[in-house]
Amino acid sequence: MIVWKNMDTLAAYSKLQSVKPVSLPSALSGEEGAARVKNYSVPMAEGLDFNYGARPVDDGILEVLKELAAEAQLAEKYEELYNGAVINTGEKRLVLHQLTRGQLGNAVIADGVDKRAFYVGEQNKIAAFAKKVHDGEITNAAGEKFTTAVQIGIGGSDLGPRAIYLALENWAKANGTLKMKAEFISNVDPDDAAGVLSKIDVAHSLFILVSKSGTTLETLTNESFVKDALEKAGLDPAKHMVAVTSETSPLAQNEGYLAAFFMDDYIGGRYSSTSAVGGAVLSLAFGPEVFAQFLDGAAEADALAKNPDPLQNAAMLDALIGVYERNVLGYPTTAVLPYSQAMSRFPAHLQQLDMESNGKSVNRFGEPVNYATGPVIFGEPGTNGQHSFYQLLHQGTNIVPLQFMGFRENQMGSDVVIQGSTSQQKLCANVAAQIIAFACGKDDEDRNKYFAGGRPSSIIIGDKLTPKTLGAILAHFENKVMFQGFVWNINSFDQEGVQLGKVLAKKVLAHDTDGALKVYSDLLNI
Amino acid sequence: MIVWKNMDTLAAYSKLQSVKPVSLPSALSGEEGAARVKNYSVPMAEGLDFNYGARPVDDGILEVLKELAAEAQLAEKYEELYNGAVINTGEKRLVLHQLTRGQLGNAVIADGVDKRAFYVGEQNKIAAFAKKVHDGEITNAAGEKFTTAVQIGIGGSDLGPRAIYLALENWAKANGTLKMKAEFISNVDPDDAAGVLSKIDVAHSLFILVSKSGTTLETLTNESFVKDALEKAGLDPAKHMVAVTSETSPLAQNEGYLAAFFMDDYIGGRYSSTSAVGGAVLSLAFGPEVFAQFLDGAAEADALAKNPDPLQNAAMLDALIGVYERNVLGYPTTAVLPYSQAMSRFPAHLQQLDMESNGKSVNRFGEPVNYATGPVIFGEPGTNGQHSFYQLLHQGTNIVPLQFMGFRENQMGSDVVIQGSTSQQKLCANVAAQIIAFACGKDDEDRNKYFAGGRPSSIIIGDKLTPKTLGAILAHFENKVMFQGFVWNINSFDQEGVQLGKVLAKKVLAHDTDGALKVYSDLLNI
Repeated sequence: MIVWKNMDTLAAYSKLQSVKPVSLPSALSGEEGAARVKNYSVPMAEGLDFNYGARPVDDGILEVLKELAAEAQLAEKYEELYNGAVINTGEKRLVLHQLTRGQLGNAVIADGVDKRAFYVGEQNKIAAFAKKVHDGEITNAAGEKFTTAVQIGIGGSDLGPRAIYLALENWAKANGTLKMKAEFISNVDPDDAAGVLSKIDVAHSLFILVSKSGTTLETLTNESFVKDALEKAGLDPAKHMVAVTSETSPLAQNEGYLAAFFMDDYIGGRYSSTSAVGGAVLSLAFGPEVFAQFLDGAAEADALAKNPDPLQNAAMLDALIGVYERNVLGYPTTAVLPYSQAMSRFPAHLQQLDMESNGKSVNRFGEPVNYATGPVIFGEPGTNGQHSFYQLLHQGTNIVPLQFMGFRENQMGSDVVIQGSTSQQKLCANVAAQIIAFACGKDDEDRNKYFAGGRPSSIIIGDKLTPKTLGAILAHFENKVMFQGFVWNINSFDQEGVQLGKVLAKKVLAHDTDGALKVYSDLLNI
Repeated sequence: MIVWKNMDTLAAYSKLQSVKPVSLPSALSGEEGAARVKNYSVPMAEGLDFNYGARPVDDGILEVLKELAAEAQLAEKYEELYNGAVINTGEKRLVLHQLTRGQLGNAVIADGVDKRAFYVGEQNKIAAFAKKVHDGEITNAAGEKFTTAVQIGIGGSDLGPRAIYLALENWAKANGTLKMKAEFISNVDPDDAAGVLSKIDVAHSLFILVSKSGTTLETLTNESFVKDALEKAGLDPAKHMVAVTSETSPLAQNEGYLAAFFMDDYIGGRYSSTSAVGGAVLSLAFGPEVFAQFLDGAAEADALAKNPDPLQNAAMLDALIGVYERNVLGYPTTAVLPYSQAMSRFPAHLQQLDMESNGKSVNRFGEPVNYATGPVIFGEPGTNGQHSFYQLLHQGTNIVPLQFMGFRENQMGSDVVIQGSTSQQKLCANVAAQIIAFACGKDDEDRNKYFAGGRPSSIIIGDKLTPKTLGAILAHFENKVMFQGFVWNINSFDQEGVQLGKVLAKKVLAHDTDGALKVYSDLLNI
């Protein structure tokens, strides 16, 4: 039977607080250090490996984390989730994003339908639509092919799909599967839409309006902006727009769209990249086959996440070590550092995924918790970050755990040899070097050149960033965040913290304010 | 006389630790709250205002901060700096980036030249060169005009210029001053250069190679990558390249460039946007007149930063309140949140500026300090962030001080009215609403919908994001970081923390490794 208990009531958590901390410089030194790095590795989906040799754990701590996983019933709670329990207690909803990529357990029947079949059905609808667009069966009014897909959405309807598109754009170019270019409009700032419209060929653009509720202010505003632009260009908006929404939303039955594709309330925005929210734009851009590969990678990661043994379950292990770093070692921030320029916006997606899911102060039952929950997440690709904020990571007064990612090969195939090595080798050499520099530090009589070390990291290593490996990495982090939410006994699937600002913004726009809020409104000339 | 003392030896700092903390919900309530927001405002350069009504200070705390400013001799130290003292003690260098935009004090003679005259001279050389490019006097070998400027640089040669270019691209379009498009290649990841080259018209592109030392590995590698591409396209690289470097670097006398523009060792990379590092690409993209306006905005901010009274010096005040938040209230992270899509990469620039400058654990004399220094900086534009990580900012277990920016007008002029308001009004309404939501919170019996408030923020408000206001904002943050470094008694102008990784990466590439580093190198197939 599943029991939902606060982390600080668990015996394994008490035990965790009294384990002897690991000294990374000594743990990683000599032959034993080499052996440790070889051993502290878990196979992930699609040939990836999760190496935690430089995380601040040892066999003793891992044993306690294993106990914590068992006591917190992580595998059982995941099973509940994918079998259709109401895990999102705040909103009284099922949590089914994993079902968009595979059937993990029992059939889940909700609203009278088999949800896996529903998601597959939408994928098939999208695939058929995308194929018609690519084949020139669906065209603009002049009978010309669409060349650009423009996603209009914000938050989860923007960050994930955008990060994935950018991660695979060059790969698709190199593999001849870039069917359409994708652009993204998100911000209510009118210059966002105006800026994108000023650089695309509107007559050959297909706009994808994405809003689960069909009421997102930013997205509806940008829809109007775009419709205006289409009309001014003498074009019929209805010939240039598709909608991605829920079946019950105002957009679902709107005649103003070429097509509508559906998701539902069981998929949170930040978990929606593998639903129609990511499916439409990615299938149009890369072809449905590529999107299917992406889903396969995620599905394989989801299946591996079932393993109750964290030493064989990278997502669960990553989650548990993160909890140890956050709650026992007291590190408030985590950096995400992909050594891949293509992943430039992936940290921004993980920032939403993690911070919106686990930035909570109450447990699943609405009671305040007495321990820290989700950390601040930030990051930029390497090697760029090395020339920027790494100074603080190496020598600042706070320790920031690091999540590296690295790939042995680049996506586009072209490279140059300078000073005896390729750029790709330099990229990989840098991430290897950074792991050791952070963990082991360096002594120096000049304290300004002294590195204390003890700065933990793990790395996900793969051959190449492809649709499959990207899907596996995305699911890894989704599942990591889910497991951490289970440990902290919080609801990772609602976001009540976004409501108050919305309510107050409406008041400002209605000029229904007084006091300090009125002063700020006046200062901004509203 | 200037005395450099650790912060924890200052009487005002002791005093600061025992002040009564401010309760923001009560400080901002009612008529008194409204009056506070009106009063807690400092005029900045170019018509901007710095409003700190929602920062956790009151008149009593401000008085102590004023004492701290005086005791730490902030104004005097700034004066020393711009008069040419060796403020960068670690590298034994002057710190002269402010001199690129104005003569703030005495003439500074170094290396036998007047440095202000030197910087102006380089600006003039760049202006003349850019004009010739725009006028078609300098063309490609076929006599055709260049249409694209591609900056090749990393860290400070990338983040600042890129953030500024993006911040002004739409403004320039709307004002008819977008002379050339700019692109940026930074990462040693070969897919970065390959990706940019795949989307530009190489035959009409001018590449700007930027490296102060002339030895930056990433930049030299990318130069080779680009030269290869030019040669493969049958073009002469020497007709397509300019260099920005120091006069003593290997690049300075290289015949392979159309021109070379100079900076020097007295301008750190992260402070170099107003030197030739930003000057070349921005003058080519927008015209030298626009770059001059940008410098004017920064110069005005620099002049205002001389005021010894923090209540009339926004940069100094922002710095002092930040120190109070970091060291007394114990907040380890700060978010930068511009309500402007154009500023999408400005947080990444500030992240480098702040974290690389103040992420230090030793004082100016190389002695360990016993207090926290620079915080982690991260951010994304609003309203996008509201649909992402704001959940944690509102309801997470850690408090994150926020630095908002907002503008009354948009850059491109076009807008739509939906539900009775324009997009720009919605954007402004949201930032006003967020300030109050964060500071004041909201009670609710349902603890899941409860907002504790007490989450501090300030806002920089202006009419519009223009070259001048952007310059003023850039200099504001540079000066804020400088003042914080003075309070913490650290050297904000070196970056020894980046060295160890470089050394180890070289070892990896030379296969000169053993132990754990060799295992990581093997895992990455180097």
